[in-house]
Amino acid sequence: MQIGMIGLGRMGANLVRRLLRHGHTAVVHDANPDTIGTLAQDGAQGASGLDELVAALPAPRVVWVMLPAGAPTEDTITRLGKRLEPGDTVIDGGNTFYKDDVRRAAALRARGIDYLDIGTSGGVHGLERGYCLMIGGPDAAVRRLDPLFAALAPGGEKPPAGADPRPAQGYVHVGPAGAGHYAKMVHNGIEYGMMQALAEGLHLLHAKRTAATDSYDIDVAAVAQAWRRGSVVSSWLLDLAAEALTHDGELTDFAGAVGDSGEGRWTVDSAVEHGVPVPVLAAALFARFRSQQQDSYADRVLSALRHGFGGHGLGVRR
Amino acid sequence: MQIGMIGLGRMGANLVRRLLRHGHTAVVHDANPDTIGTLAQDGAQGASGLDELVAALPAPRVVWVMLPAGAPTEDTITRLGKRLEPGDTVIDGGNTFYKDDVRRAAALRARGIDYLDIGTSGGVHGLERGYCLMIGGPDAAVRRLDPLFAALAPGGEKPPAGADPRPAQGYVHVGPAGAGHYAKMVHNGIEYGMMQALAEGLHLLHAKRTAATDSYDIDVAAVAQAWRRGSVVSSWLLDLAAEALTHDGELTDFAGAVGDSGEGRWTVDSAVEHGVPVPVLAAALFARFRSQQQDSYADRVLSALRHGFGGHGLGVRR
Amino acid sequence: MQIGMIGLGRMGANLVRRLLRHGHTAVVHDANPDTIGTLAQDGAQGASGLDELVAALPAPRVVWVMLPAGAPTEDTITRLGKRLEPGDTVIDGGNTFYKDDVRRAAALRARGIDYLDIGTSGGVHGLERGYCLMIGGPDAAVRRLDPLFAALAPGGEKPPAGADPRPAQGYVHVGPAGAGHYAKMVHNGIEYGMMQALAEGLHLLHAKRTAATDSYDIDVAAVAQAWRRGSVVSSWLLDLAAEALTHDGELTDFAGAVGDSGEGRWTVDSAVEHGVPVPVLAAALFARFRSQQQDSYADRVLSALRHGFGGHGLGVRR
Amino acid sequence: MQIGMIGLGRMGANLVRRLLRHGHTAVVHDANPDTIGTLAQDGAQGASGLDELVAALPAPRVVWVMLPAGAPTEDTITRLGKRLEPGDTVIDGGNTFYKDDVRRAAALRARGIDYLDIGTSGGVHGLERGYCLMIGGPDAAVRRLDPLFAALAPGGEKPPAGADPRPAQGYVHVGPAGAGHYAKMVHNGIEYGMMQALAEGLHLLHAKRTAATDSYDIDVAAVAQAWRRGSVVSSWLLDLAAEALTHDGELTDFAGAVGDSGEGRWTVDSAVEHGVPVPVLAAALFARFRSQQQDSYADRVLSALRHGFGGHGLGVRR
Repeated sequence: MQIGMIGLGRMGANLVRRLLRHGHTAVVHDANPDTIGTLAQDGAQGASGLDELVAALPAPRVVWVMLPAGAPTEDTITRLGKRLEPGDTVIDGGNTFYKDDVRRAAALRARGIDYLDIGTSGGVHGLERGYCLMIGGPDAAVRRLDPLFAALAPGGEKPPAGADPRPAQGYVHVGPAGAGHYAKMVHNGIEYGMMQALAEGLHLLHAKRTAATDSYDIDVAAVAQAWRRGSVVSSWLLDLAAEALTHDGELTDFAGAVGDSGEGRWTVDSAVEHGVPVPVLAAALFARFRSQQQDSYADRVLSALRHGFGGHGLGVRR
Repeated sequence: MQIGMIGLGRMGANLVRRLLRHGHTAVVHDANPDTIGTLAQDGAQGASGLDELVAALPAPRVVWVMLPAGAPTEDTITRLGKRLEPGDTVIDGGNTFYKDDVRRAAALRARGIDYLDIGTSGGVHGLERGYCLMIGGPDAAVRRLDPLFAALAPGGEKPPAGADPRPAQGYVHVGPAGAGHYAKMVHNGIEYGMMQALAEGLHLLHAKRTAATDSYDIDVAAVAQAWRRGSVVSSWLLDLAAEALTHDGELTDFAGAVGDSGEGRWTVDSAVEHGVPVPVLAAALFARFRSQQQDSYADRVLSALRHGFGGHGLGVRR
Repeated sequence: MQIGMIGLGRMGANLVRRLLRHGHTAVVHDANPDTIGTLAQDGAQGASGLDELVAALPAPRVVWVMLPAGAPTEDTITRLGKRLEPGDTVIDGGNTFYKDDVRRAAALRARGIDYLDIGTSGGVHGLERGYCLMIGGPDAAVRRLDPLFAALAPGGEKPPAGADPRPAQGYVHVGPAGAGHYAKMVHNGIEYGMMQALAEGLHLLHAKRTAATDSYDIDVAAVAQAWRRGSVVSSWLLDLAAEALTHDGELTDFAGAVGDSGEGRWTVDSAVEHGVPVPVLAAALFARFRSQQQDSYADRVLSALRHGFGGHGLGVRR
Repeated sequence: MQIGMIGLGRMGANLVRRLLRHGHTAVVHDANPDTIGTLAQDGAQGASGLDELVAALPAPRVVWVMLPAGAPTEDTITRLGKRLEPGDTVIDGGNTFYKDDVRRAAALRARGIDYLDIGTSGGVHGLERGYCLMIGGPDAAVRRLDPLFAALAPGGEKPPAGADPRPAQGYVHVGPAGAGHYAKMVHNGIEYGMMQALAEGLHLLHAKRTAATDSYDIDVAAVAQAWRRGSVVSSWLLDLAAEALTHDGELTDFAGAVGDSGEGRWTVDSAVEHGVPVPVLAAALFARFRSQQQDSYADRVLSALRHGFGGHGLGVRR
């Protein structure tokens, strides 16, 4: 099939490359002309703008938008909506809030255009490893574009007899508009929790090396490597941790202030909305918030209170 | 009554002063001769060492040890045990781990000496406000020393008819050896949780002042002051917070690294031992641990993982 | 002054009674005619509907709405807005989401009507104890109605020289529209955290009574009573806990499923929005969610996983 | 090599079978004669007691104890210690607290016997998948028994040049006595956290199916299946979750009360001891504690407080 791709960052460019490798063709656009040139060398057809991209695609068109969530994606989809025709399909493969998908899908549906929200997991390794796709939108459009999804997904496992074959290949039609990004949101919430669990445990192993009592001179990288094989915590995140630790067990290149994205936050919001207790997912999110702060106001309040009732000093000097 | 006091820090000195004000007498000792001199001016009798202190007290003696938990208290009680006689009583008013009390009480009991563990809350305000006392030990010894406890406690409230009158005065005989420090341990665990709840809420009010969206220029001190009267969160901790905030709403004098003590830790350990879920008490403890660290290993692991799967940068610069 | 009060539940009725005691007068309405009659006996003037209530009040009017948040409040304020005149003031004293206040205030302002959002804390004890008021809205309207707020607030403390005298009396003008309910929201978030801290600590004391090892037969009520006086955790919540425990140390009348309200949830949402770590406030909220469930799906997942990797049974039978 | 195995439960029996498959031989004993008979059919030599087992092994002997932690293991190792000779080795492959290992190793060392503590992960799938081994003890003994460990471990990956080849095969010599069980303890702590993260996320997906607003009829099993391939959360735990959910998306066979073991608890204790914040690992542990309770005392305290200040009912009926 032929696809249009808008946004050729780490994710968008590699999605195109994986599609090209599987025999599909692509017309691509990015605000940065250099990235268009790079993809053109890999076999894609460059387009200098949305008009050119739309004109280059045969109807019914499919255009995948892979841009940062928020204004960049919103603006592009609005502009696309004015250029596409009934029967065309727009895909938002980014990390959009699922309620925005519902709104957009309705607006495009009124013009006869299908909208798919696709949560895309796999990161920089997706080109080789394949992408896990969580898809929301109308069933007919999802079925029509199946060859694209089959190419992007990791594939490879035989599904249980009679079952929908797609999940065993690494992609799933979760439900109507927004459902794909909802599943991706929860995926990222789980990701935060698993990462934090791993980080806390490795921190404890590392602290044991220099503990005041009962210390062990643990080679954290070696333990992580061993856990990768046969243990209950074996996971892709552990693979990545072991790789980083093997390179440098002290992780001195990495800053202690950890970024967070909308999805970890929305997961907690959604849990609060629906009355689902998520102590671990929330604790993982708050650990990231905390990592971004120094001498936080809350902590100064604690020091002030300790001074107030106990005459303790103004705080502990680090 | 007459009491011996060993340890004339903030707590010990004021305990003596409050007893003197209520007509009791005291023989006092401290490693620092200056503090002995200061208390002597307030009417106490100084003793240059344990032998002198023991000799100056009429049998049956009562000696209150008010020293840092751990070796200082342990050593002093061991040395006292060799100098005291059957019928005497040793009080540990510090923050000892309750299982150490059980051991010590048995050792002293073998020599006919009573041992009381007394959790003492009230901090630097106790001299005026009175001390809340949580007492562990044999009933007869607790009864015998009641005049001392009645003097130290805040007092003032009429108990329900027929009830033990002591709790309404601010002191309680919790149980045998260790029970006093156990109750104090849990008290401090609750204290950690309440402080953290207050700190988080005030942090949120403060952050709202400069929020990117929907900000309010909240006078945090004024809100805290108002909450002190009539609200559900009115509490002594809130009184102290309001006082500190009124002095400086930014709390710039206070460091963000917050100390912790054994009791907050033992509370979590005890909850783990007995299978009691304490998510809030543990979260409060961990917030203090976290406040004492910068660029923690756990956070560097998170940054490394984000870099590994998403190609994110090396971390967020603060 | 004269006030109109709509909603004569526990809170509304007692607000009126406290105003009457301080020499103010009130025209009152409730969907339930009986409650109107009761208040009339206390000296208020009953009104059978909004039209009658508005007609009975001299301009410039002030009408306090004290209804459940959401539709009941929203509908009433909409209907009031159509009946009031420029210069009048509407107060929402309930637990409204602060962004709704912003919207309503703008709509009423366009008609020349002032809108105040007042977070009201004090519960069933407010009649005697006074109410802590957190007020949002335009300064002139807040100043004009000061006699009402002064009557409702607990009062009684001399403010620092030169300071706004209101916070020391228990009421505070937090900021423009929504700021009052925002402060109340955070107040309730703190309340959740403090309650949970207290509940966890008391649970641990109670569990120690029957612990498999090192048990103490602790009189939890007596300990709570003692803590009320002189300890660091002394607070109104502790007063209430001690009262309930003194009545029945097992609390057998109370169910273990604990309700929650919008404010605890919004506090966590707001913290997530503004990047403020609130591990304790969130843990307290999730403890309530969890208390409302049995055999939760999350826990069944855990049992399924343990069975999957360890061959453990289908779960622990309680 | 030849090994003695004491304890033929799920783990012990399969360890023997995997060793037999790799050409090793085994003398086995269990309190239950039937299990000895079963293993004998698989090629092991049965022993009716410790004396017979020790006699059947050529010196220097190696005896692996695979029994429940605590008294069963302790007693067996004590009895073994009296029967073995200098140069022999005892292995504790169970879930012993690491400080107990230190004590035992010293006692056995005094008799010339080596003691290895081996954390063994892999559960019921280990026979086919191999076991991840975390080994503590003297280097010479660990080296001597390498053929056994190589047979038990999953094996298969080429290590980085120059590196210790063992971690890449799934086993690691962590350090001296206790270090193996310490690493296994932390492993299980991480396991708790990862499981809870997964459980919370799946709970949220499941709750979304019947949410009051914005519901999606999500096929949780299909989403879990898709996540297994290419996503960031792909892991063995997710494999097991997907398998269980595919069998029954409601997990109706599983109870909501989830067991916990010593290692999850010790992980939190160790983190508390060393000042390492582990909010996620602790929250996961407390979620299990909570799942084992109904109408907990803490929750009744909350209901009592809500009744006390707000006149709320006695609690929410589920």
